[in-house]
Amino acid sequence: MEFTVQQIAEVLGGTVEGDATRRVTSLAKIDEARAGSLAFLSNLKYEHFLYTTQASAVIVGPDLAPRQPVAAALIRVADPYSGFTKLLEFYAQATRMGKRGVEEPAYLAATATVGPGHYRGAFSYIGENCRLGPNVLVFPHAYIGDRVTIGEGSVIHAGAKIYPDTVIGRFCVVKAGAVVGTDGFGFAPQPDGSYRPIPQIGHVVLEDYVSIGANTTVDCATMGTTRVGEGSKIDNLVQVGHNVEIGKHTVIAAQTGISGSTKIGDYCLLGGQVGVVGHITLANKTTLAAQTGVHKSVKGEGRILQGRPALDLKQSQRVLVVFRNLPEILHRVERLEKAANAPEKP
Amino acid sequence: MEFTVQQIAEVLGGTVEGDATRRVTSLAKIDEARAGSLAFLSNLKYEHFLYTTQASAVIVGPDLAPRQPVAAALIRVADPYSGFTKLLEFYAQATRMGKRGVEEPAYLAATATVGPGHYRGAFSYIGENCRLGPNVLVFPHAYIGDRVTIGEGSVIHAGAKIYPDTVIGRFCVVKAGAVVGTDGFGFAPQPDGSYRPIPQIGHVVLEDYVSIGANTTVDCATMGTTRVGEGSKIDNLVQVGHNVEIGKHTVIAAQTGISGSTKIGDYCLLGGQVGVVGHITLANKTTLAAQTGVHKSVKGEGRILQGRPALDLKQSQRVLVVFRNLPEILHRVERLEKAANAPEKP
Amino acid sequence: MEFTVQQIAEVLGGTVEGDATRRVTSLAKIDEARAGSLAFLSNLKYEHFLYTTQASAVIVGPDLAPRQPVAAALIRVADPYSGFTKLLEFYAQATRMGKRGVEEPAYLAATATVGPGHYRGAFSYIGENCRLGPNVLVFPHAYIGDRVTIGEGSVIHAGAKIYPDTVIGRFCVVKAGAVVGTDGFGFAPQPDGSYRPIPQIGHVVLEDYVSIGANTTVDCATMGTTRVGEGSKIDNLVQVGHNVEIGKHTVIAAQTGISGSTKIGDYCLLGGQVGVVGHITLANKTTLAAQTGVHKSVKGEGRILQGRPALDLKQSQRVLVVFRNLPEILHRVERLEKAANAPEKP
Repeated sequence: MEFTVQQIAEVLGGTVEGDATRRVTSLAKIDEARAGSLAFLSNLKYEHFLYTTQASAVIVGPDLAPRQPVAAALIRVADPYSGFTKLLEFYAQATRMGKRGVEEPAYLAATATVGPGHYRGAFSYIGENCRLGPNVLVFPHAYIGDRVTIGEGSVIHAGAKIYPDTVIGRFCVVKAGAVVGTDGFGFAPQPDGSYRPIPQIGHVVLEDYVSIGANTTVDCATMGTTRVGEGSKIDNLVQVGHNVEIGKHTVIAAQTGISGSTKIGDYCLLGGQVGVVGHITLANKTTLAAQTGVHKSVKGEGRILQGRPALDLKQSQRVLVVFRNLPEILHRVERLEKAANAPEKP
Repeated sequence: MEFTVQQIAEVLGGTVEGDATRRVTSLAKIDEARAGSLAFLSNLKYEHFLYTTQASAVIVGPDLAPRQPVAAALIRVADPYSGFTKLLEFYAQATRMGKRGVEEPAYLAATATVGPGHYRGAFSYIGENCRLGPNVLVFPHAYIGDRVTIGEGSVIHAGAKIYPDTVIGRFCVVKAGAVVGTDGFGFAPQPDGSYRPIPQIGHVVLEDYVSIGANTTVDCATMGTTRVGEGSKIDNLVQVGHNVEIGKHTVIAAQTGISGSTKIGDYCLLGGQVGVVGHITLANKTTLAAQTGVHKSVKGEGRILQGRPALDLKQSQRVLVVFRNLPEILHRVERLEKAANAPEKP
Repeated sequence: MEFTVQQIAEVLGGTVEGDATRRVTSLAKIDEARAGSLAFLSNLKYEHFLYTTQASAVIVGPDLAPRQPVAAALIRVADPYSGFTKLLEFYAQATRMGKRGVEEPAYLAATATVGPGHYRGAFSYIGENCRLGPNVLVFPHAYIGDRVTIGEGSVIHAGAKIYPDTVIGRFCVVKAGAVVGTDGFGFAPQPDGSYRPIPQIGHVVLEDYVSIGANTTVDCATMGTTRVGEGSKIDNLVQVGHNVEIGKHTVIAAQTGISGSTKIGDYCLLGGQVGVVGHITLANKTTLAAQTGVHKSVKGEGRILQGRPALDLKQSQRVLVVFRNLPEILHRVERLEKAANAPEKP
């Protein structure tokens, strides 16, 4: 990828100050940029980087008035952050997400249908009666079991496994190695202490704009549906148990686990390494700090919880201040005991 | 799948009350059922659902005497739960587990042997000198390294990786993306602070009826055997270190980690996100609550532990009650100190 | 594999005491060895095993003077541990790591180049403009995206996924199912409460001698580089966020998570299930006990931290002693309160 500063300014509808003929070949942060890089300056708090950056060009906003000489060419636009994001999207599309067509060998069952504009990487597998919409990308080694439907523009990354009967909406992303729809962990204890598997015949629904992280696992329902609501984003190595329901626009960070049949509300934020037991409900807009353990329902919108056991943030902070000083507290109790038992002074 | 109520009654050895000609196409919980669904009612606590369910038919037991009109057809059998489970198994078999034969391209080394009734999905790999018993299912993208043996009726799901020399018993399930038998984490510190890998030449044995969860990792032994005992069930994203030995009929929930050389007894229950250090032993029938951290051996059968550090459940509960009230305890200590230092009243 | 005791002694430059014609077929620990096994005795603390082992031969050092009859043949060398490790490496090479050549079908893009001495397993995928050095092993189902470079002697195990633009050094190991270079977890909150993905166009660099565990995930940088320094070893199921920098010769145990933009120093040791928040720095030689949670930078080399919140080890141990006895502390406070409120004795 190589463009002149002038070409980029035209794409962004901006004007050039400085050498418009320079060539840029990469995008970078202003403080990490090198010759050939294009950077941006949106927050004027970082203005000082403008005078030291090695970037060949910097996208800036209407308010910037340089107070020192600037080596970089400037591309002046209305909103530098949005402009830069547009370029990022264009770059990602051009380099990594622009795949189209079929690499052989790829497996497509005779009864499956695939929309126009798709990519099927080598060794991808699409089972019987699948229905894939337009512009769906299926990277190498992705497995799509029987009767799966995938909406327009969704991307199934390398080695992701989508189990039979899963329903995936539009513009979803399932990252590499994720497993969606495998059997839930259901076993009936037998009189002799052994366990018999309970067949799991439900499925998973990912609504539109959902993102599932790398090597994350989402179990299918025993019967019925495990559901991830519209726009929710799940990070890597997360476990979502059978029959879980996650609301809309909820964000779940890496290595968190949600046990079976729990319902997470809309607009929730779950930090990393959080654990939530089964069969409970988290109200909308609940925030759980990293490593929180939740063992009962959270009622009332907008609460922030922390710790194991989970306490409201302020209570948790007060508790932890005392917790760190426990040896001192013990010492003070010992002093009180000594004083209480001392013979009274004459 | 479509059957009449009469056909299902015959399979279950039951009798029909109501319209035996109705057609059912799916299985559902009684409170989630829709037209066309077949549900069951086993626990009479849920009898009220019988009068509101939209199921086309409900399997009921001998004791049920409806006290209101019922829209669904009834199939009366001796044990509704068992009958329904039988249908679940039949359904799972018919829809997801009934694969047989070979999808091309699939890789089978010249020296490997595969029993009758098997399935080898497209892009599955079976290495040199493997021995697979009858009715083994190997889903797409599964990797089975050299010299692996797999017993009758076991299922290796999509993209699971079975490393060389692994021994898998009969009727095991290895779920999608699981890695069984990869090198353990063993490095010899060098004088310069760097680490040199210690070659890992042992292997993994899964005894009969073992289940390994999606994206779970089971490391091979440095030398000798990492073992999962008969009937034990391991959930998703669990880490089992090298030379670990897990007993029989032990259940381990998601995201738990067992460090190297630890021995877990029979009939244990480990909750989710538990951590167990290396080189210790857990007695038979030990239960660890979710998120417990265990750093020394647990002796004496049947104990229940919780917390970090792990304490016996009752002690842990007593400790946590005080823990939540630490700010108040501090306040009481401060009050006592104030009183002790106050000038005596005249 | 079958060798005589004499042959092994010659390879190791040692001398035989006992029957040099015996045949050994496996390597084992001295206390687990059976007939046909070769074991070693390095630490004389374990000398007693020498008199009971069933090993056919044992490698011993110059200082050993048996005080009882020994059934095994002895191979006497200068350093038994090094000698045995040499055999382990030879064994691993001969049985599992000795693959060379191409198994078809394997996918190699027309613009990719692969060095001499390589292995490409069936269903492996190597994308456009990849550069693989000599003796690189790519196991079945490994995915290597466009423009990836891999140095001499590195091993990409079954089903590992290396995303585009990743740079892998010499003698690295990426274990089965690991995902290196997938998009980081970056979303811009929108005014309506939804999230818009921020394109991630950076990459991952693994320096020489790095090891990445099975099903571990290493996210690519938003822009720039996520880096794992020379010789660092990462265990299974670890999450490394976008733009993280890990120093040299640092060891990270299983299921630990490092959030985005955090910098881990050289020669650090992170136990299992540790969580480190984003945008902080850990000094060189920091040690974190298993399950530690770190939420602010650790300054000063060589500290050992433990717990959630992370405290210096000694403080943490003192705190936990009091923590376990909280119910008793409460009881003592209650007794003091009772005494303070008691009517004064006459």
